Amino acid sequence: MAEINSRGRGAAVLRQTVTDTIVAAAVAELAETGYAGMSMGAVARRAGTGKAALYRRWPSKEAMVVDLIEVIASRQVPAGGAGDLSSDVRAYVRAVADTLSDPVVMRIVLDLTAEAARNPGLSTAFDTAIRQPRRLACERFLRSAVERGQLPADLSLDLALDLLVGLTQWRVLNTGRTVDDSYVEATSKLIIQALPLCLDAG
Amino acid sequence: MAEINSRGRGAAVLRQTVTDTIVAAAVAELAETGYAGMSMGAVARRAGTGKAALYRRWPSKEAMVVDLIEVIASRQVPAGGAGDLSSDVRAYVRAVADTLSDPVVMRIVLDLTAEAARNPGLSTAFDTAIRQPRRLACERFLRSAVERGQLPADLSLDLALDLLVGLTQWRVLNTGRTVDDSYVEATSKLIIQALPLCLDAG
Repeated sequence: MAEINSRGRGAAVLRQTVTDTIVAAAVAELAETGYAGMSMGAVARRAGTGKAALYRRWPSKEAMVVDLIEVIASRQVPAGGAGDLSSDVRAYVRAVADTLSDPVVMRIVLDLTAEAARNPGLSTAFDTAIRQPRRLACERFLRSAVERGQLPADLSLDLALDLLVGLTQWRVLNTGRTVDDSYVEATSKLIIQALPLCLDAG
Repeated sequence: MAEINSRGRGAAVLRQTVTDTIVAAAVAELAETGYAGMSMGAVARRAGTGKAALYRRWPSKEAMVVDLIEVIASRQVPAGGAGDLSSDVRAYVRAVADTLSDPVVMRIVLDLTAEAARNPGLSTAFDTAIRQPRRLACERFLRSAVERGQLPADLSLDLALDLLVGLTQWRVLNTGRTVDDSYVEATSKLIIQALPLCLDAG
């Protein structure tokens, strides 16, 4: 009985090791080729395994990439919780800059953003694993700041989120311009000063 | 001689008509399939012509898409020139919202942004035809506002461009949230009030 359990554990550990190897290969392949160009065969070759090993784990390329999105999401640093608006904004801007400056993550995020406009399954996975949690984390610290009186009671959450998320992501993903400590400091300062101006029109 | 000229003109007109048909088919195909998945054969079928007609005009898919980028760029409304910061910002935000809200343009811009991270030729074409002219148009009206004293002399152009371009594009391309008149008004107002806060750290 003990031996069966031990053998069972061994098989499970081996299976997990192969899964990890495939996931690492798929992340690298996705960054290099993009979703549309990526094939299960190329991922298998990069992982040093057969296509059957992939199809035992995922029924399709889409299912595999939906899982990869979870893996990538888990690398993203959660925002908020410092209990002070300035600290929360600085921590958030730094986390976005650090995470998205990684060329592998940057390419995959750009690629999946484009692919999500064509593929409802990927779009849902991307929203659920990455966009919504990030949005909620920011909403949480913005609402706390409103409660503490650090932001106006009629703050437009939509505009405030555009400012917080849009400004940072835009620079990192779309401009190719430097993202260093002085960028993080200047952008954080601008966001902190401009947040109270986020009010609906009229 | 007159007849040859007339025949020559006729041939040139016909050739241009075929080119226009192919370009329209390629734009539709690019929006639907994306750069990586798009084939010259599919574009030819959609245009109702042969692949040879495509290869007589462009040596490769990349060369064709570089030309398409010029076509798409020519649809973008140029920014600035009202001679007043508020009007320039409003006109710019409205132009970005109008242009990028078109689902065909939105998908192509997202797709080429992702593809440019992998393909230096497309990246250069995208920068030259779209990003640089837009950046320069914004720089021009921001500098004019500095000269008129509407913005501080030590304005950080980089931060001001992040605010202007990033805020608007982010909302339209990445959030799926509404972009209507009240969005344009609220975002323009926020940008106008926050531009004077765009200063380097320190």
